[in-house]
Amino acid sequence: MKKHNFSAGPCILPQEVIIKASEAVMDFNNSGLSLIEISHRSKEFVDVMEQARSLAIELLGLEGKGYKALFLQGGASTQFLMVALNLLEKRAGYLNTGTWSDKAIKEAKIYDDIYEVASSKSGNYNYIPKGFDIPEEYDYFHCTSNNTIFGTQIKEFPDCPIPMVCDMSSDIFSRQLDFSKFDIIYAGAQKNMGPAGTTLVVIKEDVLGKVSRHIPSMMDYKIHMNKGSMFNTPPVFAVYTSMLTLQWLKNLGGIEAIEKENEKKARLMYSEIDLNPLFKGYSSKVDRSMMNATFTLTNDDLKETFETMCHSAGINGINGHRSVGGYRASMYNALPLESVQVLVEIMSELENKA
Amino acid sequence: MKKHNFSAGPCILPQEVIIKASEAVMDFNNSGLSLIEISHRSKEFVDVMEQARSLAIELLGLEGKGYKALFLQGGASTQFLMVALNLLEKRAGYLNTGTWSDKAIKEAKIYDDIYEVASSKSGNYNYIPKGFDIPEEYDYFHCTSNNTIFGTQIKEFPDCPIPMVCDMSSDIFSRQLDFSKFDIIYAGAQKNMGPAGTTLVVIKEDVLGKVSRHIPSMMDYKIHMNKGSMFNTPPVFAVYTSMLTLQWLKNLGGIEAIEKENEKKARLMYSEIDLNPLFKGYSSKVDRSMMNATFTLTNDDLKETFETMCHSAGINGINGHRSVGGYRASMYNALPLESVQVLVEIMSELENKA
Repeated sequence: MKKHNFSAGPCILPQEVIIKASEAVMDFNNSGLSLIEISHRSKEFVDVMEQARSLAIELLGLEGKGYKALFLQGGASTQFLMVALNLLEKRAGYLNTGTWSDKAIKEAKIYDDIYEVASSKSGNYNYIPKGFDIPEEYDYFHCTSNNTIFGTQIKEFPDCPIPMVCDMSSDIFSRQLDFSKFDIIYAGAQKNMGPAGTTLVVIKEDVLGKVSRHIPSMMDYKIHMNKGSMFNTPPVFAVYTSMLTLQWLKNLGGIEAIEKENEKKARLMYSEIDLNPLFKGYSSKVDRSMMNATFTLTNDDLKETFETMCHSAGINGINGHRSVGGYRASMYNALPLESVQVLVEIMSELENKA
Repeated sequence: MKKHNFSAGPCILPQEVIIKASEAVMDFNNSGLSLIEISHRSKEFVDVMEQARSLAIELLGLEGKGYKALFLQGGASTQFLMVALNLLEKRAGYLNTGTWSDKAIKEAKIYDDIYEVASSKSGNYNYIPKGFDIPEEYDYFHCTSNNTIFGTQIKEFPDCPIPMVCDMSSDIFSRQLDFSKFDIIYAGAQKNMGPAGTTLVVIKEDVLGKVSRHIPSMMDYKIHMNKGSMFNTPPVFAVYTSMLTLQWLKNLGGIEAIEKENEKKARLMYSEIDLNPLFKGYSSKVDRSMMNATFTLTNDDLKETFETMCHSAGINGINGHRSVGGYRASMYNALPLESVQVLVEIMSELENKA
């Protein structure tokens, strides 16, 4: 039975990427060797790394603008620490819009003083704060573009008087933005880019070199940059599969093309949530995420029926996060419109039944 | 043509592991979903992680001895830093036996004072220092069991009066040792355990909690332990493939069985190096690595002929590291004896030709 994979991450990847990744594990480029048993210093793999790095820069429209892309390990959680180690001298401003922002703040606090420019914590993060000030004397401003758990997304980024750092783990490559507004963008691969195990970090070179602390090698962006993202053995399989996904996106027409698809999916999903009296959206309408739609049943007695219907239709991964409850339909780049149609039909069928 | 893969790492893995890993990327356990698109919190993947962790402990003979296994990210290079952050309060003693020890010392020095108990640096690391003292008042002693670049290996570990930490990246699971002598063992997966992208860390629990510094979450062994090695999204593919390799080793008869195979391969390789006047071993005989045999041609004029012969026979990855030159035959667990036989025959044929 065909599965409809709404997992929040690790999540659905394009079928052609999965086929190619599986083939490369058996035999890489007809070399007679597996992708995972060749040297990372071989020309074949160095080419993969270089292609992944340049595709990331190209798709974000950052060519010739002083940016470099790295594929590191340790997830966004390691970036919470690295950002502070590389940029924080005196004080930084953080926008707190959810669990991940909150963790980013906690890790950065270890090193110095952090100021929350605004927070939606009191509303259990069901909206994005607006109209806050970013003090000019701070070292940088940090925000999280999309909040997977709560289903909110920043629609307009502030004109930032200081370097702007953004955790785009769950919506990178999904919508057009002026990415040159950001000085550091980071994203765990496991949503729109590839399998778990690598993290994309895009850095404007001139933002570095301004802190006085000694940075340990593995934590130092400059060292990774100078070594072409190969300071130590990179996560070969995750980088290769990310490269395949970026190639797939480029062939599709890039971010401009995928954004149209993502808009269609989100429109369909949220219309059903709004029109069907059995369901209620969690997040504030103006801040709704195009990637993760969070919603609950208005009548808990229908829970079992709804979930059985979903299961029978091959729908996977729509349980909401424990901090919100209910359901979450994650509609990342690789999820076909058809999957959203199947889910929406079930929701509508449930209404007819009830 | 069949390849004989002598790569120093990432390196050869068992063929059945490669087949199963490739299949899981297409369809994981007949779930209709790829291994790389399911949630890491799903029962299926949590089982994989638990199995990988318990197989590591079981194969090392550490069951019921107070040890826990973690599968982290960032390679041994990140462990250089984490060891110091988690254990270093005042001073630590390091044995310097090669490039990797040297880097471990450099990263730990950031935090406090490090003392080299002994070093073979002046001999370009072609031997293992012996008869050194380990001061009892130090926080811990650190050593590197096998030196891939130079082809040396510690045969006897000191009776250590303080916690002993060992980087076993390039020879873990290859020979029988009393692993309970060590308090922390770490190893990048990409030699005897799996693909690049995860690092095994085996920790005796009671060695932790003795430093006064605040440790950032991603750097804190205790946090990873308390979360069952799932504090954040783990590198799913690398952990799964490592689990497959550990299962393969267990089915084969564990470390005891593989050690016999490794001894056969090493004996064959070093006999040829010693008996063939065209070749010369690099490292001191008593310290020779069972994993990486380093050697040079005594007559450089034969270089092209030798390398052409190797290439024609499907031999891959025997170029020596630039700091030693010559050749390096890496004979990790998954390399069949047959591959060493093919290489040795070519060396012998070259002698007959010359």
